[in-house]
Amino acid sequence: MGRPVLLKLESMQPVAAFKVRAAFNSILAHLDECLSTGVVTNSSGNFAQAVAYAATRLGVESTIVMMRGASAFKRGRTEAFGGNVVLCEDSFEARFEATERIRTETGRRLLHPYNSPETIAGNATLGLELLEQVESEFDLYVPISGGGLIAGTTLAVKAGRPECCVFGVQAEANPSMKLSLEAGRPVRTAPAQSLADALTVLEPGSRTFPIVQQHVESVELVSEEAMASAVRLLAVEQKLVVEPGAAVSVAAALATPPDRDRPLVCVLSGGNIAPETLRALLADAS
Amino acid sequence: MGRPVLLKLESMQPVAAFKVRAAFNSILAHLDECLSTGVVTNSSGNFAQAVAYAATRLGVESTIVMMRGASAFKRGRTEAFGGNVVLCEDSFEARFEATERIRTETGRRLLHPYNSPETIAGNATLGLELLEQVESEFDLYVPISGGGLIAGTTLAVKAGRPECCVFGVQAEANPSMKLSLEAGRPVRTAPAQSLADALTVLEPGSRTFPIVQQHVESVELVSEEAMASAVRLLAVEQKLVVEPGAAVSVAAALATPPDRDRPLVCVLSGGNIAPETLRALLADAS
Repeated sequence: MGRPVLLKLESMQPVAAFKVRAAFNSILAHLDECLSTGVVTNSSGNFAQAVAYAATRLGVESTIVMMRGASAFKRGRTEAFGGNVVLCEDSFEARFEATERIRTETGRRLLHPYNSPETIAGNATLGLELLEQVESEFDLYVPISGGGLIAGTTLAVKAGRPECCVFGVQAEANPSMKLSLEAGRPVRTAPAQSLADALTVLEPGSRTFPIVQQHVESVELVSEEAMASAVRLLAVEQKLVVEPGAAVSVAAALATPPDRDRPLVCVLSGGNIAPETLRALLADAS
Repeated sequence: MGRPVLLKLESMQPVAAFKVRAAFNSILAHLDECLSTGVVTNSSGNFAQAVAYAATRLGVESTIVMMRGASAFKRGRTEAFGGNVVLCEDSFEARFEATERIRTETGRRLLHPYNSPETIAGNATLGLELLEQVESEFDLYVPISGGGLIAGTTLAVKAGRPECCVFGVQAEANPSMKLSLEAGRPVRTAPAQSLADALTVLEPGSRTFPIVQQHVESVELVSEEAMASAVRLLAVEQKLVVEPGAAVSVAAALATPPDRDRPLVCVLSGGNIAPETLRALLADAS
């Protein structure tokens, strides 16, 4: 690409996703309360595993509400990390209701996957690390679901080095943040199938949206084919297993390289791809 | 496994293999000569790419002799890195003869993939790095083909920390080093099919064998099924793409964990697995 391309390997984190940053920070910020009451959350997958992992490490009880249709792969891992999984019907409303019920009945502290100050601050550690790891100004590509990762990362990066540019990336199938920016307020999109099963939040968070609105340069959209191709490229050329919702950053960077020579940093936000999905995406790689 | 397991990611090196260490050292040790005459070598794949890569970076011409039956994947990469590939018949004898002919006709310096002092010293840098990266004594598992990697690594590790234990690992299909140790001299084995297409040298090197004989604790053998399982494990759990000839270190460590609590270090020697092979090995992973 004519300039350095750096990959931030959140896929190599414990639970193979950046979500441990937010999970640990959300518990550590209220540790005494969490030790006493336990925590509850809901998640499409990676945050569930992260909360289970962080809670178990910190001696805290965790309950995770997941939809019945959630990946068996991610559910099994959440349980393996020590989380108590409670299943609900396949809608965000049902999941919200089940979570609220548990929170009210048990007094457990609710951890939000992307829209709490603790979550955003936890994710900001990624930006702080980039400031240490990259010496010059850089262009950053960050996947967006609810906006927690890009909000935290951008706040840290722009506070330390305002000349850096940050680009958000979503799947074409779920352009909630892009449409919200165009509308000037958070708007809700309809659910749609996508390989990027980690990028399924249908509406930006009330806290994350204004941060993105104010600090992020633009949001790019990536086709299913382009993200599949990026997963293949990362496996075959870089020897990295990443999930489609993470590979969108590379797909976007490849599609729209800004015309300059500063390093380009792609956040590979997670590696939790089901083996059969990776296998299918490798089929066209030879 | 009840103790720390560390993975040394040679699969993340340029050309996705430890071979760059030996390739660079072999050229840099005689740089003026190599700049003037160029270099020639023969290889089952990873050393070919490494020589092409290192030579091109150092401004040196490189010719690599490969068998016609060598992986098209590895051949294509060798050419992409700037190497001139010359094909020969599918035997080690034919490859040796073609290499000698080119060396005599062109005056190019011959680089040995595993048995030269420069190769062994280049590989020793891996051991020096481990001494820096691991604080305590450790048990080390290293794949063996011709023995160059384990010879160099072991010399460095045992010089710096004699209490460390080093275990070599081969495929059951090609136990040349193990049989040689039992015989007390290098013996030649018959060619055999194996997933571990990087571990195909049929006889230990004259320089590498005595080093292994003197310093390595033992050589473990790994079945095809166990190495396939280790490739799957590394992809699914660790998000790493490695070749079967590298995953043998993990397979051996899993099969024979010594009964103690010092860290266990597995050298993942390369990542050059063909996409269709990785795809096939993922089939049983769900």
